[in-house]
Amino acid sequence: MGPVSSNLDPEVADRLRRNEAGLVPAVVQEHGTGQVLMLAWMDDEALHRTLTTGRATYWSRSRQEYWVKGETSGHVQHVRSVAVDCDGDTLLVTVEQTGAACHTGNHTCFYTDLKVGQ
Amino acid sequence: MGPVSSNLDPEVADRLRRNEAGLVPAVVQEHGTGQVLMLAWMDDEALHRTLTTGRATYWSRSRQEYWVKGETSGHVQHVRSVAVDCDGDTLLVTVEQTGAACHTGNHTCFYTDLKVGQ
Repeated sequence: MGPVSSNLDPEVADRLRRNEAGLVPAVVQEHGTGQVLMLAWMDDEALHRTLTTGRATYWSRSRQEYWVKGETSGHVQHVRSVAVDCDGDTLLVTVEQTGAACHTGNHTCFYTDLKVGQ
Repeated sequence: MGPVSSNLDPEVADRLRRNEAGLVPAVVQEHGTGQVLMLAWMDDEALHRTLTTGRATYWSRSRQEYWVKGETSGHVQHVRSVAVDCDGDTLLVTVEQTGAACHTGNHTCFYTDLKVGQ
């Protein structure tokens, strides 16, 4: 279970298959461009807050606290939709991204390509 | 570390921050449509095979074995590009998807929307 008890809709909670820390990965995709911006983690309460406030909210594994994306940077994420995958262990969050999603200042966290091929 | 020792390029291996099972999540996105298809897991050797063969290869946590996507279903993924994120703990794999990515027959695993809003 997550770090705090949650008000998440029980029907949604029943769908989730969490890891041993009570978390599921959330893939964050930009509405319109389709760019994959980042991956973060949610527990039940982070998902509840995301669904009810429309502001993307994650669980910070390093700081062990809830984290409303953009709260300090201003680089907020307005949530357009949230989907759960076929086996309930991953979320896909579609957002309108203000500014850069990445703490490095890059728009996406995935700016380093690896070499494919022999 | 991953389940087997790997021939992964040491420079790439140095970038990776693996979980306690030696794995990193791989977000799989369809080239062209931009659709996010699925999330799977890679250890160093799965990434090495993906990069060198151009065929998306994952580590199956349930079966505890390597899994060349589409090997049994025919729904193969030809890899266009692989990116690692800013802190090295997530991969983004861009693929040309043959058939459905999801074992349910859906094109994407993310076909169940949750309700956003009050």
